[in-house]
Parts: sequence; C-alpha cells; structure tokens
Amino acid sequence: MRKRYVLGIDLGGTNIRGAAVGAKGGILARLILPTESSQGRQRVLGNLSQVIKTLSSKFSPKEFDLLGVGIGAAGVILQKEGIISQSPNIPQLDGFNLREHLEKEFQLPIFLDNDANCGALGEKWVGAGKGMNDLAFITLGTGVGGGLILGGKLWQGIDGTAGEVGQMTINSEGPECMCGSRGCLEVYSSATAVVRRLREEVMRGEKTQLVGKQGKRLDRVTSRDIHQAALAGDRLSRRLFREMGRYLGIGIANLINLLNLESVILGGGVAEAWDFFVPTLKKEVKQRAFKVPARRVKLLRSWLGVNAGFLGAAFLAWQRAAEERGYEG
Amino acid sequence: MRKRYVLGIDLGGTNIRGAAVGAKGGILARLILPTESSQGRQRVLGNLSQVIKTLSSKFSPKEFDLLGVGIGAAGVILQKEGIISQSPNIPQLDGFNLREHLEKEFQLPIFLDNDANCGALGEKWVGAGKGMNDLAFITLGTGVGGGLILGGKLWQGIDGTAGEVGQMTINSEGPECMCGSRGCLEVYSSATAVVRRLREEVMRGEKTQLVGKQGKRLDRVTSRDIHQAALAGDRLSRRLFREMGRYLGIGIANLINLLNLESVILGGGVAEAWDFFVPTLKKEVKQRAFKVPARRVKLLRSWLGVNAGFLGAAFLAWQRAAEERGYEG
Repeated sequence: MRKRYVLGIDLGGTNIRGAAVGAKGGILARLILPTESSQGRQRVLGNLSQVIKTLSSKFSPKEFDLLGVGIGAAGVILQKEGIISQSPNIPQLDGFNLREHLEKEFQLPIFLDNDANCGALGEKWVGAGKGMNDLAFITLGTGVGGGLILGGKLWQGIDGTAGEVGQMTINSEGPECMCGSRGCLEVYSSATAVVRRLREEVMRGEKTQLVGKQGKRLDRVTSRDIHQAALAGDRLSRRLFREMGRYLGIGIANLINLLNLESVILGGGVAEAWDFFVPTLKKEVKQRAFKVPARRVKLLRSWLGVNAGFLGAAFLAWQRAAEERGYEG
Repeated sequence: MRKRYVLGIDLGGTNIRGAAVGAKGGILARLILPTESSQGRQRVLGNLSQVIKTLSSKFSPKEFDLLGVGIGAAGVILQKEGIISQSPNIPQLDGFNLREHLEKEFQLPIFLDNDANCGALGEKWVGAGKGMNDLAFITLGTGVGGGLILGGKLWQGIDGTAGEVGQMTINSEGPECMCGSRGCLEVYSSATAVVRRLREEVMRGEKTQLVGKQGKRLDRVTSRDIHQAALAGDRLSRRLFREMGRYLGIGIANLINLLNLESVILGGGVAEAWDFFVPTLKKEVKQRAFKVPARRVKLLRSWLGVNAGFLGAAFLAWQRAAEERGYEG
C-alpha cells in the first residue's frame, strides 16, 4: 500500500507556508512563498498552486498517496461553500470560491478553514493542547484571531464562522475597530494595537528609547521593536504590554465564564512578549472570572508557533479525508 | 408497566416552583412554595422537601414510577460533586452538597444544574428553541443568567460552570458588579440594572411620571413599574430600555461572533419590555457582529416564561435517568 500524506497550508497576508504532513503530524517537507497579495488575485492563486505543486512533486505517486489539501486563511470562511467571505489580509480573495477553484485545478479534495481555527486544531493535535478537549486558541498578530475546541472538536458554529475572539467587545465605548465596531479585543491586544498605542503615547509627549536620535522613525516601529525595547528596560514599552495584557485578561475572563475551558493557548508574534503582559492578564482574570473555572484553566503558550496554522490545516485534511474515504486517520 | 415521570424544580431566591413532568414535557401537576431563604438553610431545605413530597404523593407508586428529580438553582453548580458553589440568591446553600442531602432523604436520583442552564434545556425541549441545536438562552431577571446549547447538548464546560453570559465584561471601565468585576452585562441589562439607572437619572434631576406626587417612592420602584411607565409613554423609562437594549446587543454580538448560533432566546421579567429594548439591541448587533452569523441568528422570546426552569430541570432528570437506567427517555 502507498504511504498516505496530506498538504497543510497557511495562507497568510504576507506568506504562504505549506508542508507535507504525515498521519501523526510529522513534517515531511515544507515550503514558504510570498503571498504577493498586492499583485492581485491571479498572483496569489498562482503562488498557492506553486506551493501545492512543488510540495507534492517531492512524493512519487507510485509510493505516496496524497489524500487532500487543508488550507487555513484569515477571514470569515463559509464552510459549506468553500468561500472566503471577509478576508482582511487578502481582500483580493473576498467572496472567491477557493475550494472549487483548487479542486478543479488539482482534482484533489480541498478543505478550507479560518487560520486561527487551524491553529487551534494544530495545537490540539501536536501542540500545547495535546490531549485536551476544551480549549481556546488565540493568535496575537496583525489582528487577534481565535479558534475554539469544544468536546474534542473544532467548534465551527452553524455557518463555520465561530471563534472570532478578536471581535469580542470588551469596552463598549472603546476605540474604533477595522471591523466597524469599537472596543473589540483586537483594538487592544494585537500587534497593530501595541504599535498604535506607542504612537499615541509618543505624540502625547511620552519618552521612549525606541524613537528619536538613537531610535527609529515612529512610523517604522513594529511590535517586535517594542518587545525588544521592553527587554532593554524601556518603561513606556513595558507599560504598553501591561496595558495590552490587562485587556487580553478581560477577554480571556469572558471566555472562562462563558465556556469553562481546560486551557487558553496564546500564539502569534505578540505572545513573544509573554513575560511582560502575563502578570496583568492573570490579575484581570482573577478579578473578573468565577473562581472555579478560573482555577481550572491553564494559560499556555503555543508550542507550534508559525507552524500551528499549516499543521492544523493538515489535521483538517487528515480528518476529513478519513471521513470521506471511510477509514481512521 | 408503571407510567414514568420525573419532578422538575426551579429553586429560586423567592420561590420554589416544582412540577411533575411526563416524557414529552407535559406538566402533570405543579406546586409553588416560597423559598424563605431569609429563614436559614434548614427552612429552605424543608420547603424543597415539601415540594418533592407533595408532588410525588399525587402519584401512586403502584401506577407511577418516579425516575428522578431535576433541580435548577442560581449560582455556580459543581456538576460532579452536586454542590452549589456560589449562590447569589440563596447564600445559605453556598458550598452545600444539595444532591447528597436529597438523595439520602428520598432515595431517588437527584440531578442539579444552574437555573439558566435548565432554562436553556427547557426552551430547547418544548419551547422557542425546539428543533434547534445551537442556541443561547439569556434570562433577564434580578441578575442576567445564561445557558448554552451547542451541538444539541447543554454546554456545561469542564466543571459544569459554563454559560455565565451575565458575567461577560462588555465595558472594561463600567460600573462595579456584585461579582467583583466591573462592566459586566448584568450591570446593564438586569432588572436590578434598569432600576438602578432610573434612580441615578432621577437623582440627577431627570423627570419621570413614575416618581413623585402621583407616583411611587423612588426606593420602591421595580423594573415592572418602569415597563408600565414606558407603555404609558414615560420618556425616561423608554430611554432606559433603549440603553439596556444597546448593552444587551453588545453581549449578544459577542456570542454571535464567538459561537455562530442559530438562535438567542431571551427570558426573565425584563424580556416583557421586548418592544422597548429590541430596536437598539438589533442595531448594536448589526454594527458589531460579522454579517454572516448576524444574518443567521434568530432573536426569540422565551415561550415558557417562568416554566422554563422547572421544565428544563425535568428534562435533565429524564435524560440522565434514561442514561443511568439504560433506556431512551
């Protein structure tokens, strides 16, 4: 019998990360290409096809059986239709039936889900959530994404749009969010939010070693820079992470009270600044969540980092392909 | 074969509502006794026993088989232990192992859950959520309670404490809540909240027909009075329900983004003021929730009213007793 494998792909705003993945989550081969979304839809689709072709070409069809391709993408994914309905990072794909397109091109089963949902699946499969049945995965990146595992399964909701932790209002009167609402968790705890807050504070006259003579231009500062500055003792940078942690703690307390989870796993670039934001996060959880579920929940860092998305997408492909072919993955 | 039935009991801060309930949700007999929680734990337990005795005495054991007793109570219920851990309305039962106590007294299986969880089960069984698999039930009473049905089942979480919609922070800087947090949904959308807001506005000099010469003493006004005044055209009362609806809409938008539900069902006394708070509620949902899940969700009024709790408790007893005895309820 031929050896089975799947492809898992994380289709991000900047990069397309793909891998060939075995039944137990082993990475057999991997490839990163730029998304080049600014070059238009055809370019993005071309790059995506390139990743699938290049990875699958490494495995001879005589020896290997490609079961399917799982893809995680930012945005609201309409499960049944295979459509990306609201894609903040790759607006060129808005409303596009990606599944149909790729199934035609490759004659392979294509499985599509939200990138953070895939991250949650990845962490549950071979990451920090291994062996756990009830967890939330939160990515702190350009935006704040989320995925829920409930009763051992990805909770997708009735249309497949569930898990949008970043669009949880935690301050009804807070700053406007890209999504059209205001005071969303994303407005406080994303990389974008930390950078915005730094700008606001500098404009207000706050001092930081990050900007000015020895530093960068204010409009070039990234959340990574702010983390570096915090490590070097910059007081403003440290304060901003404490602030960001406080709001993240409020969002997590809401999840705890609502869902009584076993763990909350934090991933994405901003999670690197863990030591700076976790104390205020925990303080807020203690103040706002019920005692029993607050004591229960484990706050964990992602094990898989940037691999979480494509590994979860691969898991999706393993799981669904197994269902369709009628055997255990 | 003897006819099977269960008892369903809603153990509230003011009243104990009990009923004998058939396999399809038919109410065979019912009884209400005052809780008398101010008279201490023994009195509450005595009244509860009285309800069980009186109801079951109507059914001859020769002809009828009592499968078990389901009880819904306010507070955080530790499922596995059968303990009421944080009971706001009946603090006399805090930490008390109610299940053990009643199983000893009656030699019957006792099933305990949060009152709003029972409400959710009741509405799904024979109420507004009949035939739906993914829904949230929210009670707008003294506090704001919640219960989640996900994938056709009550979502209890890992300790059985899930569903606390009322303790969702929607304004990080909002007024203090009884729970120790601030800006919880409960602070804005409970009966208590509407009454508090009326007092605040009157103290601030706002006019209302409710208070003063032809009206009541300010400290006697209830949310029901405010609803009556709104019906009679009182502008302040109407404004307060619009405000309450706005915040409730924020909480519901959070549920929609997080869980992508089929319906949200509103019960409890304040839900009577539906026409006054629903327009702002819907406006807020439209602004804050993603389009696809917002279009999907049905906003419904409870069908069962004050019966939801004991009917859901009865469903719990049917379901669990069936599991334990190994047959279908």
